[in-house]
Parts: sequence; structure tokens; C-alpha cells
Amino acid sequence: MQDKQYLMIPGPTPVPPAVAAAMSRPMIGHRTDDFAAMHKRIVERLQVVFQTKNDIFVITNSGTGGMEAAVANTVSPGDRVLALVTGNFGERFAKIAREYGADVDEVNFGWGNCVDLKTVEEKLSANRYKVVLATQNETSTGVINDIAGIGALVGKTPALLIVDGISGVGGAEIKTDEWNVDILVTASQKGFMVPPGLAMVAVSQKAWEVVRDNKSPRFYLSLPAAKKSYEKWNTAYTPAVSLFAGLDAALEMMMAEGMDNVYARHKLLCGAARAAVRALGLDLLAPEEAASPVVTAVKSPAGVDADEIRKVLKKEFGVTFAGGQGILKGKIFRIAHMGFADKMDVIIAISALEMALARIGYPADLGSGVRAAQQVFLGGKR
Amino acid sequence: MQDKQYLMIPGPTPVPPAVAAAMSRPMIGHRTDDFAAMHKRIVERLQVVFQTKNDIFVITNSGTGGMEAAVANTVSPGDRVLALVTGNFGERFAKIAREYGADVDEVNFGWGNCVDLKTVEEKLSANRYKVVLATQNETSTGVINDIAGIGALVGKTPALLIVDGISGVGGAEIKTDEWNVDILVTASQKGFMVPPGLAMVAVSQKAWEVVRDNKSPRFYLSLPAAKKSYEKWNTAYTPAVSLFAGLDAALEMMMAEGMDNVYARHKLLCGAARAAVRALGLDLLAPEEAASPVVTAVKSPAGVDADEIRKVLKKEFGVTFAGGQGILKGKIFRIAHMGFADKMDVIIAISALEMALARIGYPADLGSGVRAAQQVFLGGKR
Repeated sequence: MQDKQYLMIPGPTPVPPAVAAAMSRPMIGHRTDDFAAMHKRIVERLQVVFQTKNDIFVITNSGTGGMEAAVANTVSPGDRVLALVTGNFGERFAKIAREYGADVDEVNFGWGNCVDLKTVEEKLSANRYKVVLATQNETSTGVINDIAGIGALVGKTPALLIVDGISGVGGAEIKTDEWNVDILVTASQKGFMVPPGLAMVAVSQKAWEVVRDNKSPRFYLSLPAAKKSYEKWNTAYTPAVSLFAGLDAALEMMMAEGMDNVYARHKLLCGAARAAVRALGLDLLAPEEAASPVVTAVKSPAGVDADEIRKVLKKEFGVTFAGGQGILKGKIFRIAHMGFADKMDVIIAISALEMALARIGYPADLGSGVRAAQQVFLGGKR
Repeated sequence: MQDKQYLMIPGPTPVPPAVAAAMSRPMIGHRTDDFAAMHKRIVERLQVVFQTKNDIFVITNSGTGGMEAAVANTVSPGDRVLALVTGNFGERFAKIAREYGADVDEVNFGWGNCVDLKTVEEKLSANRYKVVLATQNETSTGVINDIAGIGALVGKTPALLIVDGISGVGGAEIKTDEWNVDILVTASQKGFMVPPGLAMVAVSQKAWEVVRDNKSPRFYLSLPAAKKSYEKWNTAYTPAVSLFAGLDAALEMMMAEGMDNVYARHKLLCGAARAAVRALGLDLLAPEEAASPVVTAVKSPAGVDADEIRKVLKKEFGVTFAGGQGILKGKIFRIAHMGFADKMDVIIAISALEMALARIGYPADLGSGVRAAQQVFLGGKR
């Protein structure tokens, strides 16, 4: 059964049939009332998900393009930027700021750890930054950061808080306005269950005042240009129409489920996956208090290459986990339970993992991980 | 029949069923052998379409992002740029170059005219430019420019020739290498029959030498970053996987038809549309020698608002033409015969136009335009 595949990477995530069907509808022009109505509906529902009244721009590129839009529109050469780094994507954000000539103060909290608020407080009181860069959910390590806590600190300063919510938003709650997030960036291919190709960027009033006067070159990623078209529910440049249709359908699913239920589902899947991993005697990378609800990073047993486990999973069982990135390559594997994922996906992941461990000769107690996950789903030990 | 719609705008163009089906396949990871194999196949077929041996980068954004990639990677503040402008998209290219601080020499040949080679020759001999910007097919006016002629002139100088082939490539022949095109930019939603969201950028050896040392900030649109991943048939950032699958299927259709047949089909549709317009007593915007094979711009009869005709077409017959842009708004309408278009599409366009003209009280001889198109399809007068 080559076609029976189980994609469990933290993006792109599986596409629900209703989303695939919406993307297959005949093409429509993007300067039409039909497109404008869809665009308006998408933005209004994204405002519910983001918990914001801010403008939200849906731009046609992947998440990194959204991160660059946030930087290009707020950072000019010489500006002081504080980058809070907890892994690969935090490093990328700092790198983009440097590309735009920023003087970047990069604080690395270590891969597998979350941002320490005490350090942030010290940094903010000792320096005057124009922009603070943070990652909500660090995809590379399965760590979630305390954006509420960071936002409470940054909100007391003139600095803008820019948050990479690419892999978090849609699976982990975000309160954009209450948490003082000035620019929130996310993308279509994670919690939103749509193929890659759309970034979403929400911009606060505090941010607009910086954006309007920023000196860096920007055309395709220009937020003022996006804003001008947005007033008429238009986009500045040709949008990825089929992906918009997919996002429209996905948001309808999310509204029908209710965002509280969406978040509770992700937390449940996370709890089951973590319980199963512990039952198998393996170590989790992220501590309990910083555990991402959407992706679980697991350390490979001593002497076992994580990528060997992944090869067996893919070849024998059609299950795809993500590997480690950067300094964690070969040392961890990552199980996504993100977007269009439910209880049985965790069962599949864990049972396949048990069999793969057995195949490579690691002494795993077959069924013990599955049982631990089942117990979580049933609401306690049985 | 609200659902029976005929989209005849110059992008996005109708999506063939085989392309829609390919885009509906289950999502795959983008760091996989399956994706790499698809990526390689796409690039090799694009090299056939572009008639080039150059590297071709498929980047996830719309065509304007591709235009900006060409500029951001070659233009630094103060550089001299010659912009050959024949309409809205030529103006956009010049505007992007100015955003990157270029000293732009913008030559406007007038909307509806093509680039005059004599003027280009004079400009090139009197100035030393780093970059020359040209538009192959000016979508806003239905004019095709002589890229072979421009390339022969620019190729004798140190300047790079950057061509916006967004609405042309795939419908009008381009010989990238023979014509000295250093950077060719095109996009998915025109001749390639795929929804918007992908830009394709081909880069010559002459261009690479400039790209590597360019000083403008670029991250998501960085060609050196794209090149590094491309060596492993990877992409620098998450690609729009479903659109890649669509492009793969569309290229298979184009290869099966044969590019010579694709170009002959577009020329035939253009000839039929123009003959029909003339038979109806309406005026064409572009002269015969600069007629775009993919989109025909028609002047509205004196005293008739082109957008009124378009409203009737859409409302009564489900047919969508494009309107005029910029200074031509309300003065012209544009009929695309681009991508997934065949003889009957021209018959539909012209017969609907005849009825719309009759409806608004313009004395059109019903059937006379259709007859003229039929005669072209039958290979001469009957």
C-alpha cells in the first residue's frame, strides 16, 4: 500500500477533503466581488483565531516571506533589535533582521528550552530596542514560549513585539491584542490545514506608526501597499486564489469545531503523545511546562540515529516523522499532531514507533506506548 | 446557470481538470525524495519551455515577487537602470527598481505601442546601464515586444537584460539563451494554467556574477539562497507543494501537446479574435505587428463605457473579460486566449460580445464576428 501514507511532520500538514475540494473549484478572477467577499470572510475569521481587531494581511508566499515582511517594514539599518532565540526558527528571525542591517542583540536560551522572562526583563531595562523578535512555537524543538509574559514586558516599552506564530497559531491559543503582539506572522500549512503558500500578518496601530516611515526597500512585501488594497478587500498583487479558497474552507471547519475545542484537542494529543513516549522509556526534549501542543520532539535512544528510526517508519509503515534540524540532526525525531489530526493519528504514530524500535533492535515493550496514549484518551488510568 | 462561467482574463486563467486533480493529491513533505524528483522534473521541462540551460528557480509568490527577486538580486542604490515601458507592468518594473534606489531611465513608448529598437540602440550607445528591464507581453495593452531584437542590442553591452515574461511565457515563444535574456521571470497563473502562487526565475551566468555581489537586502527572495538548496533539488523555504504538483501536471500537458503546437494554437486564437473584432467594426488597441498571441485588447466604441459591456457579459452570459488598467480604464476591454484555451473559447467570447453590444444598443451585426472567427479556424474565407 504505497498510497496509504501518514504525514506527521510540523508542516505541511495533511489537507482535509473539504479543503482539497474547495481548492479544486474553478478559478475566479481576483479583482471580483466574489474574491472580495471570500477575502473579507477569511480576514474576519482570522481575527477570531488571532483574538485581534488588527488588520490581517494574507500574502502569497511561505511563512519566511511573512517573517521578512515584518522585518522589512519595521527595521532600518542600524536599528537595535532584541532576538529571543530558542531554536532554528528563532535564529532565522535574527538572521533576517541582520540582512536588513539591524544591530541584533541575539539571546540564545538553548535548543529545547523556552525563553526565560527574567532575562527578557533585564535586557529590556538595560537597553532601548526598536523591535523584539520572538517565536511562539519553536518548531525545531517542540517548545512553546510564553508570549503573554514576553508581551507584558515589551508592552511597557516603546519597542514593537513581532511574533513568529507560524507553527503555533491555529493549534495553540494566541491573544494578539491582550498580549501586546504588534505584528503576528503565521502561515497556511500548519494549524490551518492548507497547503503552503500563504502567510498571514496582523499589524497593530503601534506598529503602523513605525511601518509607515521605515526606510528599508520593500515592494512585494510592502505593508502600506497591502493596506491600500485591503481597504477594498483586494490584494496588492495577484493572490494564490486556490489557496485562499482552501483557507476559507479550513476556517469554516475551525469555526464549526470552535477554537476552544481546537486548542483542547491539540493539548489532548500532546498529552497522549508525551505519555506514550515516557511509557516507552524514551526522553522528551522539551520540559513539561514548555511542551508544544502541536509537535513533540523525542530524543533518540543512546547509540541510535534518529534518522534510522525515521527511515524504517517511512519504508515499512508509511509514517513520516520530522527529523532534527541544525545541532539536533540525527539526535531527535519530531511527531507532529498539528492541524487535521485526531486521536487515531497519535495511536498510529506510537504503534509505528514501537514497531520501528523493535525492528532496529531497541528493546521496546510493544503496545506499552499505545496503552499509555489510550489511557490519556479515556481520561485517566484504567 | 450561475455555475457555468467563462473566465477570459489574462490571469488567473482556467485550470485544466488534470491540474486540479494533481493539486488535490495528499500533501507530501517538501524535504523528501518525492518532492525532489518532482522539482527536478519541473525544472527540466521549464528549461524546454524557456529554451535555456540556465538554472530556473520556482519561488512561492506571485509574479511581482519574481520581478522583485530579479531587481533585489541585481540592483543596488545608485545603479543605472534602463526601463523600457509599454504599459502598466513596465511601469511596475521601473517602480520596483526605484524602490531599490536605482537611478532609473524610464522610456515610455506609449500604451498600445511596442518598444522601438532604434530608441533602445540610441539609449544603449549614449549610456552605460547595469540593468535593462523589458516586458515580453504587456498584459495591460495586449502588446508583445521584440525580445529577440532588444536582446541582440543589450547582449553587446555589459548590461543585464531582465525580462518580465509573466503573461507571455508558455503562450508566446521565448528563446532565453539565444536572445540574451539574463533573468527571465514568469508565473504560474497565465500560460502555465496553474493557479497563482508560483514565480519562475531563470538566471544566466552573466547575471550570477552581479547577483553574488549585490548589496540590497534580500532573504526570502535571495537567489544565492535559492541556488544553494537547488543543488539538492530542494527549495530555500517551504514551497507551495500543491501548486508544484499542479505545475508538474500542466507541464506534462504542454510537453504532450508540443511547444510548437502550443504557440501555433495561441496565434490561431489571436488571429480569430482579431478578425472577429474587426468584422464587428471595433478597433484593436495593438497594431498587427505587435499583437499579443495571448490577449487581445479592444477599444470600446465611442460613447460606450467598456466596463458597461463587461457587466452585461458577466451578468447575462457568465463571460468575464478584463477591463482596462491605468489610463485605459473604461476605454478598452481585454479578451484573454491564454493557457487552457481553444477555438470554442473564442467563439464563446465573440458571440457573447455580439449579444452584449446588442443589449446596450450598439448596432452590431449578430453572427458576423463569429463568422469571421470561423473562417480563420477553417483556414480562409468560405
